[in-house]
Amino acid sequence: MNFSSKLLENAVAEFSKLPGVGQKTALRLVLHLLNQDNADVERFSIAMTKLRNEIQHCRTCHNISDLQVCEICASRKRDHGTICVVEDTRDVMAIENTNQYTGVYHVLGGLISPMDGVGPSDLQIDSLVERMKAGEVKEVIFALSATMEGDTTIFYLHKRLKDYKINISTIARGIAFGGELEYVDEITLGRSIATRVPYESSLSK
Amino acid sequence: MNFSSKLLENAVAEFSKLPGVGQKTALRLVLHLLNQDNADVERFSIAMTKLRNEIQHCRTCHNISDLQVCEICASRKRDHGTICVVEDTRDVMAIENTNQYTGVYHVLGGLISPMDGVGPSDLQIDSLVERMKAGEVKEVIFALSATMEGDTTIFYLHKRLKDYKINISTIARGIAFGGELEYVDEITLGRSIATRVPYESSLSK
Ligand SMILES: [Zn+2]
Ligand SMILES: [Zn+2]
Repeated sequence: MNFSSKLLENAVAEFSKLPGVGQKTALRLVLHLLNQDNADVERFSIAMTKLRNEIQHCRTCHNISDLQVCEICASRKRDHGTICVVEDTRDVMAIENTNQYTGVYHVLGGLISPMDGVGPSDLQIDSLVERMKAGEVKEVIFALSATMEGDTTIFYLHKRLKDYKINISTIARGIAFGGELEYVDEITLGRSIATRVPYESSLSK
Repeated sequence: MNFSSKLLENAVAEFSKLPGVGQKTALRLVLHLLNQDNADVERFSIAMTKLRNEIQHCRTCHNISDLQVCEICASRKRDHGTICVVEDTRDVMAIENTNQYTGVYHVLGGLISPMDGVGPSDLQIDSLVERMKAGEVKEVIFALSATMEGDTTIFYLHKRLKDYKINISTIARGIAFGGELEYVDEITLGRSIATRVPYESSLSK
C-alpha cells in the first residue's frame, strides 16, 4: 500500500497485528478513529493501556480480575466444592451466561499443544492440583474444547487429579468434534454442563 | 456479557465502537492485546494517539499527510493541470497503486448524502472550486463510487465547475452499479481511469 503518511502507516501496521485483521480492515478502522474526536481516541488508547497495566489474575482461579481475588471466588453464594476447569476467560463468560452453573472456576490459560510448544508447565495446572489438597473440592468438571488439544489436556489433568477423592467429569459432548467452546450457543453449553459424564466412563465409550 | 473485570469491559466497549467489530470480536482482540508485552500495547496506544494528534490534511488537496502540503502536491513530477476528485484517502491509495495516474488529487472527505445529513458544505467543495480560479487546471476527473451518493455528488460538482474552461470527466464505469470504489481491483480501476469519458456525454447515454 502507498500510504500518504508515516503516522497513518504506523497506526495501520499496529492494527494489522491483531488476529484476523488484514491491512484493508486495519486501514478502515484507523480512518474511522481518525474521524472521531480527540477525546474519543484518547479514551480508546487509555482503556488499552490501563487494562494492560492494571489488570490482575485472580490468585485462586486465575481468571482476569480487577482485584486479587475475583468476584466469583469471593462469593459466598457459589459452591466452592465444584471447580469447572476452562481454557480462558471467554469460557468463564460463556458459562456464566448460561445461568446454570453455581460452582467456581479454574482458568488454565491455554491448552496443552505440543505443536505450538505449549506444555503443562505453561498452564495453571500445579495450582489446580494445589486446590485439591485443602480437601474442600468434591468435583472437578472439565469444560474444554472438543479438540485434540482439549482432549490431550483432559487426559493429562485426569492423571494428575485421579488420586484425590473427587468426582471428575467432562461436559457432555453436545458439541461437534473439533468445535471450539467459545462458538457454542448458550443452550447447548448449558445442557452439556447439566448432562456432564464422569471422565472415566466417557473414555470407555 | 458477564465480564469478570471492569477494565476488560471498558476495553471491549471501546473496541466494539469500531465499524464491523461486534462484542465477541472485540473481546478476542482485547484478550490478544492482553497476551502481548506491555511494550507492544504501549506502542499500539501511542500509534493511535500520535496519529490523532499530529496528523494533518494537505492544505491543497486535503489528503491525509504528515506535512502541510502532501508529497503528491509537492512533487514536480506530477501533472498539476489534472485533478482527480475522490471521496477519501483510501481512494488516493487505490489509484496510486495502479501506477497509471500522474495528476494530482482533491479529497472531498465524503459524498453528498441527504439521508445521512451530509451536504455540500460538509465537504471540501469550495476549496476545489478555488483551485479552478488560478487557471492552471485543464482537467477534472471524478473518481467516485458508482452509488447514488457518488452520482449526486458528481451532479452537484459539475454544476459548480461547468463555467470554468476545463475538461470534466468521470472514470469509466467498469464498476458494477452500486460498487464501492475501494473494493474494485487495481486492473479494473486503472482501466476505468484510462477510458474515462467526458461527464456530459455520460449523462446523455
Ligand atoms: Zn477467582
Ligand atoms: Zn496534497
